[in-house]
Amino acid sequence: MTSVPQSGRDPGRGRRAGRPARAGRARARQQSAAVDLATWIDRRIPHFEVLDAEALELIEYNAETVLQEIGIEFRDFPSALEHWKSAGAELDGERVRFPRGMCRSLVEASAPKEFTQHARNPQRSTIIGGERTVLAPGYGPPFVHDLDQGRRYATLEDFRNFVKLTFMAPGLHHSGGTVCEPVDVPVNKRHLDMVYSHIKYTDKPFMGSVTHPDRAEDTLAMARLLFGEDFIAKKTVVMSLINANSPLTFDSTMLGAATIYAENNQATIISPFLLAGAMSPVTVAGTLTQILAEALAGMAYIQLVRPGAPVVFGSFAAAVSMQSGAPTFGTPETSLVLYGAGQLARRLGVPFRSGGGLCAAKIPDAQAAYESANTLQTSALAGVNFMLHTAGWLEGGLAMGYEKFIMDADQANMIALLLKGVDMSENGQALDALREVGPGSHFLGAAHTLANFESAFYRSPVADNNSFEQWQQDGSLDAARRANGIWKQMLQEYEAPRLDPTIDEALVEFIKRRKSEFEDRDY
Amino acid sequence: MTSVPQSGRDPGRGRRAGRPARAGRARARQQSAAVDLATWIDRRIPHFEVLDAEALELIEYNAETVLQEIGIEFRDFPSALEHWKSAGAELDGERVRFPRGMCRSLVEASAPKEFTQHARNPQRSTIIGGERTVLAPGYGPPFVHDLDQGRRYATLEDFRNFVKLTFMAPGLHHSGGTVCEPVDVPVNKRHLDMVYSHIKYTDKPFMGSVTHPDRAEDTLAMARLLFGEDFIAKKTVVMSLINANSPLTFDSTMLGAATIYAENNQATIISPFLLAGAMSPVTVAGTLTQILAEALAGMAYIQLVRPGAPVVFGSFAAAVSMQSGAPTFGTPETSLVLYGAGQLARRLGVPFRSGGGLCAAKIPDAQAAYESANTLQTSALAGVNFMLHTAGWLEGGLAMGYEKFIMDADQANMIALLLKGVDMSENGQALDALREVGPGSHFLGAAHTLANFESAFYRSPVADNNSFEQWQQDGSLDAARRANGIWKQMLQEYEAPRLDPTIDEALVEFIKRRKSEFEDRDY
Repeated sequence: MTSVPQSGRDPGRGRRAGRPARAGRARARQQSAAVDLATWIDRRIPHFEVLDAEALELIEYNAETVLQEIGIEFRDFPSALEHWKSAGAELDGERVRFPRGMCRSLVEASAPKEFTQHARNPQRSTIIGGERTVLAPGYGPPFVHDLDQGRRYATLEDFRNFVKLTFMAPGLHHSGGTVCEPVDVPVNKRHLDMVYSHIKYTDKPFMGSVTHPDRAEDTLAMARLLFGEDFIAKKTVVMSLINANSPLTFDSTMLGAATIYAENNQATIISPFLLAGAMSPVTVAGTLTQILAEALAGMAYIQLVRPGAPVVFGSFAAAVSMQSGAPTFGTPETSLVLYGAGQLARRLGVPFRSGGGLCAAKIPDAQAAYESANTLQTSALAGVNFMLHTAGWLEGGLAMGYEKFIMDADQANMIALLLKGVDMSENGQALDALREVGPGSHFLGAAHTLANFESAFYRSPVADNNSFEQWQQDGSLDAARRANGIWKQMLQEYEAPRLDPTIDEALVEFIKRRKSEFEDRDY
Repeated sequence: MTSVPQSGRDPGRGRRAGRPARAGRARARQQSAAVDLATWIDRRIPHFEVLDAEALELIEYNAETVLQEIGIEFRDFPSALEHWKSAGAELDGERVRFPRGMCRSLVEASAPKEFTQHARNPQRSTIIGGERTVLAPGYGPPFVHDLDQGRRYATLEDFRNFVKLTFMAPGLHHSGGTVCEPVDVPVNKRHLDMVYSHIKYTDKPFMGSVTHPDRAEDTLAMARLLFGEDFIAKKTVVMSLINANSPLTFDSTMLGAATIYAENNQATIISPFLLAGAMSPVTVAGTLTQILAEALAGMAYIQLVRPGAPVVFGSFAAAVSMQSGAPTFGTPETSLVLYGAGQLARRLGVPFRSGGGLCAAKIPDAQAAYESANTLQTSALAGVNFMLHTAGWLEGGLAMGYEKFIMDADQANMIALLLKGVDMSENGQALDALREVGPGSHFLGAAHTLANFESAFYRSPVADNNSFEQWQQDGSLDAARRANGIWKQMLQEYEAPRLDPTIDEALVEFIKRRKSEFEDRDY
């Protein structure tokens, strides 16, 4: 069998070496060597679409009916109601009803089809929208899980670890936001440490705080220290996750943060967050109708605040078990929702966000992998532009898993290669290889094979493809155990990207000052 | 949270109950109760296609170039060469070169677009082709694996067990063929026991022996005892797997079996079996070219033997690790091959076969699940008509796993629901539910939810969607451990479908006679 050297450069290639039992070191080294500068995936295969034009029109019609007849509540946020009143919507307390087509027109009139989110390393600035796919890690879990310590509350150290691992993962283009909740820091102060970690330990683009308008302001203040006032005034450097309080409601916390980001021309992802059957109807088409209505109202509101402010059509949908009420993931109905939501977003002409490696499993076992693979594949084929939760999710988002992160990041590498499609160049067609080898022989030593082996076929750092006997000799490790060795080695080998010490000092000073201005609070 | 009764009837629904730790019994009961009579999946969503018309035409042109310039070897099988000579192909020893378009014309002229494979239970007869998907278990492994005994050589008892489990799995429509190799029976006699098991322990359709022409004849003799001479003379009751000896070669064993089945109007799946990089070029387009050339030559040969004999365009492609030579599964390049092969088969107008839950993992861990889910999803979206290896595969096909089987069968149920697409009926649109609930409430008690909960959302018998605390109380089991309880309970609860005792006696008598006619042989 051929033995081939490592390639090093191309993302998702050349990162497999040695025997599994002692491979952690070699693999991690290669993974860290492969901190390349891919900033998005250029999609070269079609989107997968499950709804025909008639179904799409029906859902769009029904969403307008929801907006017109039922309306959306904008709670405890008078300025939103005033915006809507001026725009010509009908107000009934906090309930806003929209003339048919109003929200869509507002979005179509000024929301950008795509936008650049700048990173502090310009080579890592990314573009959200169009035929591009940007992958980001998990968001929100209060717990972490690893094979050594099991499940426990996340700390700031865990937060930093996941920022570092994401920095080193070639398949993740974006540092994400609340990669886990640093529960050891008071709620009203932890956003400062989170934003600082995204600035200090990585140079990939990141997300801002949304748990209070003041925290959104702090995020922007820190971004100004990093990028400079002038730069931020003109450019988008922060993207933030604005969940609807489904069904059909936006609350003051989310509206407060969204308004501040929009006023500053920073990007918001308007995400109906649905456990279908509980927070949306128990059918796919009904859920899609609600997603579209909520996303339209939220994105239109952003355009009222500041026409042209970047928005992303978000979608997060799980299905509730009708037996226990528990959320379920990786099931066919939520895949259909995802495919449909991608279609609705493209028809509207705005970037689309979905979840990636979603699962209900408590540990990085086969359940975790089936559910996550189903969601990752679906999300990729659905044409997602910004895939949140690509790596690390366990337990319906309650835990961020270290081993799960490594395994999902491996899948992220593969998604990049899948979306690149088929190379139809002369070399790709390989007719000469077929001519050279002919019937009954093999291609291992063929000239075409030798010329292409370095870039041919993805090599997973996690998978064990050896014989059963070799695998036994290597310790009979399961995939999670191999991943355990990889993340530890990666963290050992992590090197921080350079940050201007003056900026660093200013940031540390800002955080110190802000922290001193408040008592600790857990809300 | 709502508590809902079990539905029982609909495949893939209502089979989740109780707590995981003691759920094996309840789950298995429900799974066995759900031995429904679904005989295929009616596809209502589009195929996913990665190649545009230009790429398809180029690959088709190149495949004709391969057939014309390089040709295919038909080894040690003079009658095949005579068929080709009469048809006007150019012979050079055992190498056959085909005028451009010849093989395609032969296939297009007489190969059926779809065909019925009859089962002994007419309600289980299935149709292969068109917008239908038929799922069958793994094929070929000499080993089995379970959590209790680990990996060991397969026995006839294992073979029977997998036939029984497949019979009880609502998502599998077909009993398959060599679900594992019963290594405790001599090679030259085990086909008799295998075919008998597929007749006795299930009433789903099955596959015939291909390891020797005499064994194909034995398969047909037993099928005649089961179905009657007259029936078989007119109908297709056996489908068989004919692998090409890639690259570009068919050997006498496969040609011998294929010829006998074709002469008797029984179905053959012509499957290029490729480890890309070793048995085909190291690129996707080159591999697709070879697959098309081999499939065309094989299917055209069948049409020469008997015009109109049912054939299936097969495709089995793994990618070889360029480092170790080991086959790898669930990778993006093989997904692209699969999507492309489906397109090529549809353009030719013949049914398409692929592999399903393929993986290189040795145990039912996260690697097994990621790789299998990737392959199952791809295969389903690619538009496969007959999915072999849907359930059970481990270790690159060297082992059939009991727990893996249960987990894959769960995925098979989900594929059925995915391919059904989105219900756009008035009930599916659920506007009344949205009207009833409105902003800020929940749908759990809504009239629409109550009217639909029994059929809404897939419930996995394997997944644990409970809270972390509940899962701990239930024993902190991983998915494989839960699956372990399920297959054991299923085998306990298995009940054989009725077989006419006269037929059974005749089959047993036939097997006894045939076994007495030969010395035991291990080839």
